[in-house]
Amino acid sequence: MFEKVKFMDIATAKKRVEAVRKELKEQKVQALIVVCVENVRYLTGFTGHDSWVLVLPDKVVLITDSRYTEQARGECVGCKVFERKGTLTKAVADFAAKAKRIRSVGIEDECSVAILKAARKAVKRKIVPVKGIVEQLRSIKTQEEIKAIEKAAKIAWRALRLTLSLLKVGMTEMELAAALEFHIKQLGAVPGFDTIICFGPNASRNHHQPGRRELRKNDTILIDFGCKYDGYVCDITRCFAFGKPTPYYRKVYEAVMEAQKTAIEMIKPGVCLADVDAACRKALARRKTAVYGHGTGHGLGLQVHENPRIAATAKKDFFRAGQVVTVEPGSYISGKIGVRIEDDVLVTEKGHKILSRNKGLCVEPENLPVLKSR
Amino acid sequence: MFEKVKFMDIATAKKRVEAVRKELKEQKVQALIVVCVENVRYLTGFTGHDSWVLVLPDKVVLITDSRYTEQARGECVGCKVFERKGTLTKAVADFAAKAKRIRSVGIEDECSVAILKAARKAVKRKIVPVKGIVEQLRSIKTQEEIKAIEKAAKIAWRALRLTLSLLKVGMTEMELAAALEFHIKQLGAVPGFDTIICFGPNASRNHHQPGRRELRKNDTILIDFGCKYDGYVCDITRCFAFGKPTPYYRKVYEAVMEAQKTAIEMIKPGVCLADVDAACRKALARRKTAVYGHGTGHGLGLQVHENPRIAATAKKDFFRAGQVVTVEPGSYISGKIGVRIEDDVLVTEKGHKILSRNKGLCVEPENLPVLKSR
Repeated sequence: MFEKVKFMDIATAKKRVEAVRKELKEQKVQALIVVCVENVRYLTGFTGHDSWVLVLPDKVVLITDSRYTEQARGECVGCKVFERKGTLTKAVADFAAKAKRIRSVGIEDECSVAILKAARKAVKRKIVPVKGIVEQLRSIKTQEEIKAIEKAAKIAWRALRLTLSLLKVGMTEMELAAALEFHIKQLGAVPGFDTIICFGPNASRNHHQPGRRELRKNDTILIDFGCKYDGYVCDITRCFAFGKPTPYYRKVYEAVMEAQKTAIEMIKPGVCLADVDAACRKALARRKTAVYGHGTGHGLGLQVHENPRIAATAKKDFFRAGQVVTVEPGSYISGKIGVRIEDDVLVTEKGHKILSRNKGLCVEPENLPVLKSR
Repeated sequence: MFEKVKFMDIATAKKRVEAVRKELKEQKVQALIVVCVENVRYLTGFTGHDSWVLVLPDKVVLITDSRYTEQARGECVGCKVFERKGTLTKAVADFAAKAKRIRSVGIEDECSVAILKAARKAVKRKIVPVKGIVEQLRSIKTQEEIKAIEKAAKIAWRALRLTLSLLKVGMTEMELAAALEFHIKQLGAVPGFDTIICFGPNASRNHHQPGRRELRKNDTILIDFGCKYDGYVCDITRCFAFGKPTPYYRKVYEAVMEAQKTAIEMIKPGVCLADVDAACRKALARRKTAVYGHGTGHGLGLQVHENPRIAATAKKDFFRAGQVVTVEPGSYISGKIGVRIEDDVLVTEKGHKILSRNKGLCVEPENLPVLKSR
């Protein structure tokens, strides 16, 4: 009852592998050891773990072990599945020994230092760490990938709507997170990352883990969540008032909303990412509101954090059509208040399209949504 | 509403850091960059992400960013919390520059090749990859750590009991997994890893992801799951018959059960791990049953896979009191049948204690449990 990854066809797999080989040629290595799990999936369709892809001049091999062989044979396209008996590096060494044209083998520099050492010991070829070859390809999404992110966002909103209807005084952050993640799974997706749910001042901690804090009347709620569908994630943050918010909270909320709008409106091919970051912060500062310490946004796809980053350091990065990024300004005062609004935005040929504002489902951040107890 | 890590006190933190410093001395480095998230937690109590610990001769520093500062100040014991503005490596470089006695700085070799490169560029000291210093300490558990694993197992069983009462024809693997994970969260824990639920022949894939396969009458069910409580995980596998199992399934089940018993009974300090692995496989083979390709077991604690490994390669590894390991033989025939039974076992001074067979809660693997529809 194996569930085929819907959008991995042989043509896509071949195209991706050819793009990798082209880049390898540039970097003067003749093969690549792909260790990152998302990159393995991107090149072969394989959704398991603990497996590497070896891109050789004339073939592609998925090196896995007996736990995954059956799954790999069902899922992989455009590659040979090899079930290793020894270590991963030993298997790579055996394939490299048989391939005569190979002098240097690249390995993804996201691999651990320990793995590089083991590979250098086992493989009788020069091993060269290489940076972001597959990640670079992944940053431009295909129509199918964009559709998967949109579908993920749709499920996210459905799950959020079902969850918000359960709100009541006394429920804990953990209970609300459990309900939200349950609904995500019930709708056929999985949570994209650890759900962040903060009641009241807990929201000043950007990466708060849901705890035993109970919901009170007139609390505010921050929910940062996502779901993964067919491997692709969405990443959405919304804030709510559970009852009557303070005028100060409203003021901060509106400033963050305006900052997000400013940033999103700038997005189109060719625009510098650091400029968007600066404009977003400036919009907040103009309203005399605390400016967030985190980045303004990040790419997303198979991973929740991908290239590119919308940050002050991205002075030489420019938007390209097909990228999908979050835009997520926030404002935090330690122990007092926390607001963040986050959407997922596709860079189109002429501008942008917000993927996470599904009609009829989305909670538009236009006005601070005020919720009632069930 | 910050939830204190219950068992991290200043004495424990100091003891752990001193043990690290002792090992650093042996390896002739004067400082250590701790990058692995579980090791960071083990030394400081910090439960966030994207942060490093720098162990210096006279102090310990948690290097974090604005997203986590407030949380870190609440959670950390025995260390200084530093909020970085630049990169992690830049912050390390600044501390290293101020510490005069330091010639070499160790960095965990589980860090990526890219990070090592960045650290070498930024820090004006010799950077030396070091292996498993904190992991080595972590493999021997304290009473508090053992209690946390036991508590995790208790919650796991409670959640499983609640979930099994929902079984009915037509429900999918995904739905059952969603229910199980919901109950885990409702009981105050989080899933320890992606729950594996396999109906019927799906169980031959050891690391199957729950899918849309529906439960049928007389199906068999394999559930491999765990939960994390106060940071510590349990890892349990049980098989069930939903109706009437075939005599062949019973035969395989009993062989796996016997193999597990054989292995568990051997566990005590001083016994070679490879011997336990061999005996377990032999017990299965004796019953003319397919022998599993995966390892016989693994350590567990803050991570679901830790040192030591019960495997054929562990010829020079011997059990030590305070270790906690899984014992999980299985038998698989591709596309036909899959059985695995897994428990968590503490190595005691004189023998062993099974931590995952909580009285009154546990489904004893004594006889194949036969379940009914609700």
